[in-house]
Amino acid sequence: MDPYHSRTSGSWEAAERVDPVLHQGVAPGPLSKEQLERFDRDGYLALPGWFSEQEAAALLEACDALKVAHAGSDVVVAEPDSDVVRSVFKVHELHERLAALWQGERLAGVARQIVGSDVYVHQSRVNYKPALDGREFFWHSDFETWHVEDGMPRMRSVSASISLTPSTEFNGPLMLVPGSHRSYIRTVGETPPEHYKQSLRRQQIGVPDVDALSYLVERGGIVAPKGPAGTVVFFDCNTMHGSVGNLSPEPRTNLFFVLNSVENRLVEPFGGLPPRPEHIATRG
Amino acid sequence: MDPYHSRTSGSWEAAERVDPVLHQGVAPGPLSKEQLERFDRDGYLALPGWFSEQEAAALLEACDALKVAHAGSDVVVAEPDSDVVRSVFKVHELHERLAALWQGERLAGVARQIVGSDVYVHQSRVNYKPALDGREFFWHSDFETWHVEDGMPRMRSVSASISLTPSTEFNGPLMLVPGSHRSYIRTVGETPPEHYKQSLRRQQIGVPDVDALSYLVERGGIVAPKGPAGTVVFFDCNTMHGSVGNLSPEPRTNLFFVLNSVENRLVEPFGGLPPRPEHIATRG
Repeated sequence: MDPYHSRTSGSWEAAERVDPVLHQGVAPGPLSKEQLERFDRDGYLALPGWFSEQEAAALLEACDALKVAHAGSDVVVAEPDSDVVRSVFKVHELHERLAALWQGERLAGVARQIVGSDVYVHQSRVNYKPALDGREFFWHSDFETWHVEDGMPRMRSVSASISLTPSTEFNGPLMLVPGSHRSYIRTVGETPPEHYKQSLRRQQIGVPDVDALSYLVERGGIVAPKGPAGTVVFFDCNTMHGSVGNLSPEPRTNLFFVLNSVENRLVEPFGGLPPRPEHIATRG
Repeated sequence: MDPYHSRTSGSWEAAERVDPVLHQGVAPGPLSKEQLERFDRDGYLALPGWFSEQEAAALLEACDALKVAHAGSDVVVAEPDSDVVRSVFKVHELHERLAALWQGERLAGVARQIVGSDVYVHQSRVNYKPALDGREFFWHSDFETWHVEDGMPRMRSVSASISLTPSTEFNGPLMLVPGSHRSYIRTVGETPPEHYKQSLRRQQIGVPDVDALSYLVERGGIVAPKGPAGTVVFFDCNTMHGSVGNLSPEPRTNLFFVLNSVENRLVEPFGGLPPRPEHIATRG
C-alpha cells in the first residue's frame, strides 16, 4: 500500500515518515556537519546572508521583469480576491539569471548534499506579497500535494526559499513547524478536478485541520526566520509551513526552487486524477 | 471648519492633531511619570502582567459565557467568510465581572489620568481570533471612525486591550505604529449607509492607503507587544493599529474597553449619516 496515501479517509492521521531526511548521511558539500544535523533534526535550515543584498536586488529585478513580460499567461497566478499578481511559476526556464542561480553550489550543491544524488527543478516560482494586501499561505506540507496531485513517489526533495526583500516580523515571513517533517499528515477531503486553479490562490484541500496542526505544534512549536534580503531557508519537502498576510507598507518577495532527486522523478499522481500542468510540476 | 474632517476628498492627508495626548500633563494615578511620558511620546503603553493570569482566566470564562448567551443577537458579529464569532459588543453591560473590571483603578484610573476627567465606556467588546481562521483587522485609527460615524468631537479617549490568552508572535497580536497618534490621517472614500454592518467584519472605508501608512511607518516603525494572559496595552484613540490573522492552533481572545472623557460625549456624527447603534457607540 502507498505509505503516503492521503485524502483517503474521513479523519486525519499522523503517519510515520518512511524515508530518510539526509539520504547519504553527513555527505560533503556546502553545508557543515552541524548544519546538516540541524536540517535533519528540525526539517529546515535558515541561512541569513547566504546571498548578498546586491545579488538579491539583481534577482528581484529579474523577477519583476518576468511578471511584466508574462502578464496574462498561465504561469502568472493572481491573489484570491483581486488581479494582483501572487505568483509567477517556472521562472527557472524564463530567465537566464534564474537558471544560473539554481544550478550553483549554494542551491543545487546543498540539495545534492541532502538528497544524495543529482537534482532537477520540480517547481520554481516567485511569490509576491504586495504591501497591505498580500494574503496568507495556509499551513501545508508540500509533499502531500506533490505526492497526491503530481505523483512524486518519495520524500527526497528540498525547497529553497530566497528572500528578495528583508524578512521581518511584520511582512508575513515563512513560518515552519520544527520537526514536523518526521510526521506525514494524511489530510481529509476529496481532491476536486483541476484543483490547482483554485488551490494556488487559496489552498483549502490537502491542508491540516486544527487537531493535526496542534499535534505538530505541541511537539515542535513555530519558528519564522528573519533576515536581510538574500537570506535562504532550506526546508524538507514534508515540513509543515505557511505564512500570514503582509500588512506592512512594503511588498515582500520570495523566490522559491524545489530541487528533486533525479531518482525520485514523477510518476502518475497517487490521487488518481490527471497530473497538474508542466509549469507547476516538471514531468518532461 | 472641523479639524478632523475625513472621507471628504479624493486624496489622503496627514493633518496635525489639535488636542493634547495627556490632558492634564503628568497627573497623579496608577501610571508612573515615566510611563505617562512614554504614552505621550509613543501613543501606547504595554503593561505585561497588569492583570494576573488567574484574573485573565476568570474574564475569559465570563466572555465565553456571553458569547453563548447572546448568540444570534445584534451584539454578536461574525467573521467575514463564516458564522464563527469575531466580536461580542457591549460586554460591560452584559456581565457583572466585566462591569466591575473597567471601573477599577487599573483601567478607569489609568484612563482618568490620561484624559484628565471622569470617563465612561464609549465601546466595549471581546474580539475572538479563532485558531487557524481568525482574520485580520486592517490598519485603522479608531478616532477617525468614531468622529465620522459616531460623532466623537475630540481626541480625548483611551483604549485598553486586555489579552485573555497569551499574545505571541504567531497568534495575530495587536500591532501599533508608535508616534502615529500625532498625525490625523484623513482617509479617502465615501461612507455607505449602515457601513458598520460590513466594517465590523472587514473594514475597507476609513482605512489608510499604502502611502499614508508608509508615511507613518517610516517615522515610527511597527511594534507588536507580547506577553502572558493579563497583559494590557493602553493606546490613544488616534494611534494607527491593526493585526494579522491567527494561523496558530490556539484561539486568541482580547477584551477591549474604550474609555472616553465625560467632557467629550458624542454629538451628531461628523460624516452626516445617522449614528451607529448604541451597542457600538454609547450615546445614552
